[in-house]
Amino acid sequence: MPDSFRLDGAASGPLEGLTFAAKDLYDVKGHVTSFGSPYWAATHAPAAFTAPAVQVLLDAGARLVGKAQLNQLAYSFNGRNECYGTPVNPACPDRIPGGSSSGSAVAVAEGSADIALGSDTGGSVRVPASYCGILGLRPTHGRVSLVGVCPLAPSYDTGGFFAKDLAVLQKAAAVLLEPSMHRRIKFTRLLIAGDAFAIADADAREALLQALTAPALRERYGDLVQVGLGDVKTGSLTDWADAQRRSANYEIWQELGPWVEQHRPPFGQDVAPQLSMASQITAEEAEAATVQRRAIAARMDELLGDGTAVLLPATTSAAPPLSLAPDELNPIWKRVIKLTAPAGLAGLPQVSLPVAKVDSCPLGLGLMGPRGSDEDLLRLAADLMELLRA
Amino acid sequence: MPDSFRLDGAASGPLEGLTFAAKDLYDVKGHVTSFGSPYWAATHAPAAFTAPAVQVLLDAGARLVGKAQLNQLAYSFNGRNECYGTPVNPACPDRIPGGSSSGSAVAVAEGSADIALGSDTGGSVRVPASYCGILGLRPTHGRVSLVGVCPLAPSYDTGGFFAKDLAVLQKAAAVLLEPSMHRRIKFTRLLIAGDAFAIADADAREALLQALTAPALRERYGDLVQVGLGDVKTGSLTDWADAQRRSANYEIWQELGPWVEQHRPPFGQDVAPQLSMASQITAEEAEAATVQRRAIAARMDELLGDGTAVLLPATTSAAPPLSLAPDELNPIWKRVIKLTAPAGLAGLPQVSLPVAKVDSCPLGLGLMGPRGSDEDLLRLAADLMELLRA
Repeated sequence: MPDSFRLDGAASGPLEGLTFAAKDLYDVKGHVTSFGSPYWAATHAPAAFTAPAVQVLLDAGARLVGKAQLNQLAYSFNGRNECYGTPVNPACPDRIPGGSSSGSAVAVAEGSADIALGSDTGGSVRVPASYCGILGLRPTHGRVSLVGVCPLAPSYDTGGFFAKDLAVLQKAAAVLLEPSMHRRIKFTRLLIAGDAFAIADADAREALLQALTAPALRERYGDLVQVGLGDVKTGSLTDWADAQRRSANYEIWQELGPWVEQHRPPFGQDVAPQLSMASQITAEEAEAATVQRRAIAARMDELLGDGTAVLLPATTSAAPPLSLAPDELNPIWKRVIKLTAPAGLAGLPQVSLPVAKVDSCPLGLGLMGPRGSDEDLLRLAADLMELLRA
Repeated sequence: MPDSFRLDGAASGPLEGLTFAAKDLYDVKGHVTSFGSPYWAATHAPAAFTAPAVQVLLDAGARLVGKAQLNQLAYSFNGRNECYGTPVNPACPDRIPGGSSSGSAVAVAEGSADIALGSDTGGSVRVPASYCGILGLRPTHGRVSLVGVCPLAPSYDTGGFFAKDLAVLQKAAAVLLEPSMHRRIKFTRLLIAGDAFAIADADAREALLQALTAPALRERYGDLVQVGLGDVKTGSLTDWADAQRRSANYEIWQELGPWVEQHRPPFGQDVAPQLSMASQITAEEAEAATVQRRAIAARMDELLGDGTAVLLPATTSAAPPLSLAPDELNPIWKRVIKLTAPAGLAGLPQVSLPVAKVDSCPLGLGLMGPRGSDEDLLRLAADLMELLRA
């Protein structure tokens, strides 16, 4: 962790006795927020106040045990950090931890924190949760305060969080989620996203589908109906991922471009090519992607009506080996983003459930629900975890 | 004010030197939140922590000068409080201040606070802003944290706020509004909601339309095109108001019913008839209203595309006389709610601008924009205030 300070929480409260870490893009009063980059840290003053998301956890009685590492500028899935080092994935030490919320996921996976705040713009909570074998929630867009948090692509950014234990994740959710945006859903139906499963590696697909054969699941939720998320109007998940790539990266350059151009930090090959790509997206391309995005959101709304949740692989595989170079990882990320884009494009909550293993390494199942259903989605997740274990 | 404590803000920050009041449904650590009711206060413990919306204002350097009065349970537009007394409308002392955020509006109007946090479920910021002659913003639903705030009808509740000065309102907005939900809009077109103007009293309508004849306004935004908000699919504003009445009051009873049934507080004629009405709405009625609500939201999305904002009267008249009994005010509220319901149903931001007077008493102009456009709507508001003054 870049900053190992501790802050006691309130003496009592719903999170009493629990500890948490915060990805180092959440401000804590008096400390410089690094955003994963020594260049960022060197050009920013100590935070004037503590981000509300951190403060509500403290107020609820949780103890902050430190800031957690992340990809530079939260801008990759690999979880590596060329400047600060790469947190070790305790589930598979020779594999990457996944990112960008690598340190948050590892802090929870290794047991040094019960809860960890991350952020999920394009998948940065769901990917490391899947690779480290823990629970991770990307909340409904807007439901966790990002006041005092470094923005990446605001219309995609969410304040996601991790835990090992579902009851702990639910307790954190009860404190963190904006209450007025809760939309009560009684989930009664599960869909299998066939086109998403088709994108995963064969062994990953098989491991997840095997977990879903639990008879207790069928008894409770009936036969799992297969659907395609993509359709004639919105295209395939490849088209969806491309819409996200263009619209999110356009926003990222709007947010980071001025700072990058002013300071010209010497980013390595994990970040530099991405920033360069982002800088070249035109306003027209971004606008066209936004139109596509609205159609995709409508498509997801249509699929998620009537108490329906969707199951899909959280990632295409278990964590890739640490030995892979960035340009060997990029083809993997091109496929992973097809699985993470739907929730990001439509602003939907998605939780990653550690229900499978491939070659002894963890792999998460994605569970996505309608906007505002977060609390009920976690209740459904608890139910599923129990049924799949049975 | 029920509680006149003061809390210093941070020594420096964007709100340095400014003061604020908080409607007494925002928690402040160590103080009992009254929710406008001595019965509520007597049955609730002091708050365990400070609501994030209050905390971010303190962190930004503003000084809290006290809790502000409100209607009991924030459940009326009249601004009266049978238990704690009624704040005096400094613009027209023989008229009601409007509510439910009566004390917040009066604190700003009389100059005892620069900013005041209120809440707007069905119009509780826009109505007192109009009657007291100040600025009031109902933000996009979900953009101001309601963690640590008494819920009324969560899917309608918003953390609105007041100021006299538009630059101050904008500064408060920059601190309070959830940044990830900002959707940038360049406003280029203004619509006049003809069916909304038709609901206002003739002299109110005339005063507002007179203000809008400023030639500078036409030069900047072209001819103001008249539209009807209601349409064949969603019905009239009367139908819209009825959908809101049913769905919001159903939620209110879900939130407050258990407490009311347990404690049976002797509410007077301002609250008791409303609670009784709310308790009788069935789940089926509420569900039908929710379906209607979605259609209305889609109708507003359609109207508010392409950089468009809508103008409508904030209230049907200037503030009614203090001498009117609740059953004389009720027919007025039945009409006012038709003007405030569209933003509430669709979750849209609406600001009330003090641009007109009727019989020397203030009357606000409502300005409504698309979801997430709050910051840009305030920029448009600043522009309009200048053009209308010219």
